[in-house]
Amino acid sequence: MTEHDAVDIIRTKRDRGELMPEQIDWVIDAYTRGVVADEQMSSLAMAILLNGMTRPEIARWTAAMIASGERMDFSGLSRPTSDKHSTGGVGDKITLPLAPLVAVFDVAVPQLSGRGLGHTGGTLDKLESIPGWQADLTNDAMLAQLEDVGAVICAAGAGLAPADKKLYALRDVTGTVEAIPLIASSIMSKKIAEGTGALVLDVKVGSGAFMKTREDASELARTMVDLGTDAGVNTVALITDMSVPLGLTAGNALEVRESVEVLSGGGPQDVVDLTVALADEMTRAAGQEVGADELRAALSDGRAMDVWRRMISAQGGDPDADLPTAAETETITADADGHLEHVDALAVGVAAWRLGAGRARKEDPVQAGAGVELHVRPGERVSAGQPLMTLHTDTPERFARAQESLEGAWRISEQAPAAREVVLDRITARGA
Amino acid sequence: MTEHDAVDIIRTKRDRGELMPEQIDWVIDAYTRGVVADEQMSSLAMAILLNGMTRPEIARWTAAMIASGERMDFSGLSRPTSDKHSTGGVGDKITLPLAPLVAVFDVAVPQLSGRGLGHTGGTLDKLESIPGWQADLTNDAMLAQLEDVGAVICAAGAGLAPADKKLYALRDVTGTVEAIPLIASSIMSKKIAEGTGALVLDVKVGSGAFMKTREDASELARTMVDLGTDAGVNTVALITDMSVPLGLTAGNALEVRESVEVLSGGGPQDVVDLTVALADEMTRAAGQEVGADELRAALSDGRAMDVWRRMISAQGGDPDADLPTAAETETITADADGHLEHVDALAVGVAAWRLGAGRARKEDPVQAGAGVELHVRPGERVSAGQPLMTLHTDTPERFARAQESLEGAWRISEQAPAAREVVLDRITARGA
Repeated sequence: MTEHDAVDIIRTKRDRGELMPEQIDWVIDAYTRGVVADEQMSSLAMAILLNGMTRPEIARWTAAMIASGERMDFSGLSRPTSDKHSTGGVGDKITLPLAPLVAVFDVAVPQLSGRGLGHTGGTLDKLESIPGWQADLTNDAMLAQLEDVGAVICAAGAGLAPADKKLYALRDVTGTVEAIPLIASSIMSKKIAEGTGALVLDVKVGSGAFMKTREDASELARTMVDLGTDAGVNTVALITDMSVPLGLTAGNALEVRESVEVLSGGGPQDVVDLTVALADEMTRAAGQEVGADELRAALSDGRAMDVWRRMISAQGGDPDADLPTAAETETITADADGHLEHVDALAVGVAAWRLGAGRARKEDPVQAGAGVELHVRPGERVSAGQPLMTLHTDTPERFARAQESLEGAWRISEQAPAAREVVLDRITARGA
Repeated sequence: MTEHDAVDIIRTKRDRGELMPEQIDWVIDAYTRGVVADEQMSSLAMAILLNGMTRPEIARWTAAMIASGERMDFSGLSRPTSDKHSTGGVGDKITLPLAPLVAVFDVAVPQLSGRGLGHTGGTLDKLESIPGWQADLTNDAMLAQLEDVGAVICAAGAGLAPADKKLYALRDVTGTVEAIPLIASSIMSKKIAEGTGALVLDVKVGSGAFMKTREDASELARTMVDLGTDAGVNTVALITDMSVPLGLTAGNALEVRESVEVLSGGGPQDVVDLTVALADEMTRAAGQEVGADELRAALSDGRAMDVWRRMISAQGGDPDADLPTAAETETITADADGHLEHVDALAVGVAAWRLGAGRARKEDPVQAGAGVELHVRPGERVSAGQPLMTLHTDTPERFARAQESLEGAWRISEQAPAAREVVLDRITARGA
């Protein structure tokens, strides 16, 4: 590999030029090896954030991050694979009912997940509230479970795209997280290295999401669909609403309980609708014609629940065990009669986080029982004095700061608000 | 001081917001103390480069860098002080005749200078080719020489604006040197901390200069004039041409020799004209009415030479000693009859640097005798075979790469080129 100069590369992007493929390969490799310094990569990341990257640049950047680590191979499985990635939202427990539901229809679902940081919870944190459940699996154990059960939700190994791990930690402290090319290549490098055959992206938009505008969400979705398609992964994206929380719960055990309700044929309508919409995309992307009606039936008749129980048991969890509850609760009541017009997703996410459901630093523990439970959905009628939401925590000194984040975050008005759609848009490969 | 968050500050500038004064004070101080990391400061520097800073932001940034170190005080001197700063060019030896010339007229000239890096030479490197001359003075010795001789050219102490020193080294390796707000605050923090009463800026534009366009040079000049004015320093800037080298020499001893010619009433016309123009500004800015005719007279009648001799002697130099010469020379001749239409400043600067006059790294030594000597000024007539320039070096293996940089760098044409002005524009305080 030819030696390149980090300063030349930074200057090229700073001056709105296009990086050459060899420059991208070199800078990712040299950064991983420590030859390019953190202060050089962070100024390059800021230049990328402000000046953008072309589609070929992003594809090469992603390929270079994939090349920094190992690749997995699911081609030996007897079933096609289909994965889902959500950009993160408040109350987003969809992976929990979704993975077993899709597995019902002979599609293997390899969900390599992470822990939460900040106001959006992590899928592994939620599942770890189930007594005995283990997030860490060897690659062999994961493949065996995919073949046997059809669904696995486990911790992503350190071997996939190590360059991304180093770069993500740097972006976090240098104000360069919000660069669409870097977000897209970070997500897609791991999904492509994981080796899934099909991928459905849930790109959330609204106050509780990472992307606050439809425009940014669409650009991110389009960039990721292009990257997946170019890498031979059958990729589709849904843009979904995150202006209000998903479902009625935000927290770890609280969200597992709600997921189990959905797997029992109940649960909040928005959670069911989004689960079915994503399952429909995942099965279709894997070449199976199932349809929404059959998917809803599999939630109602216990087929999805059956896979859930086997999936949890396979990783040491007891699906019948009581879930942990928080030591203390505090209830917020409605101050007027009317319709609950809006509940802000970000405010609920921050409240749950402050109650102990999330972590401020990677090494912090989370409380299994902490979080926010809504008693009323936006749009429903309420009477003054009726309970609106309950806050849960083991550490009651946190109630005050959680309440603070909820001030002004909900609105009761005379008129019923317009009905809200969960799925706002669908983005497929160009020409598809 | 309140604690601030580095990531918030970076995001504010990234999103085109204006930094609060307390944020600027905090980030400069915290960076100097090592609390803000290099990778955070470099991404902030890139955001500043791409998104700019407002006039109040630049003023506060400069003040914060001044506050990171000591300030000098010339108020005890019996004469007003006037300093000059050049943004650097090829063959720019103007400080050498200028400082003694201005001192003739009862204006004290404190020239705290640096060494060269890259293709523009450093004033201290040039003077160090005079046998015995010492660049390092204590503050007391500097003040005494200013009072006694009226002019001093010496090394800037490490105590002035240490934040700038740390930031400059970072910018050098992170592609963030070319940010006008950061260039302006870097220069002006040192000049304001030095305590000069008046300041004349020589902002060079053209291939051999840091600023390649009139627009950038004007913006830099305007920014620095505003900064100086806001800090109570009587500041004015000249925009001067650096498309061709200044004078006929680029190198250390070679430029001292040319400066002594100017102090003897001779020398190339452009060097004399620029020396007189800058001396006129410096004396006026210090409140003295001298005028160009009287300044030219002081060059011709030996008054400036007299101060020069005392200035060199005061720092241990022998003004009568022979200057070092290079061991080897090589001459380039004209390949046609005509007018020498152009000689590219950058090419000559790079050639002189490659011959040994400059350094690639801070710790490299320089050759006193190395450099490029022109025999013909742009605009003059030449005949085929006539010597155009002579290359000087102690290390003849360097001739080939120096020749390479000069390929295509000069042009002989039939018509005489239009006359060239050295001073292109003058920028004063707004409303002045």
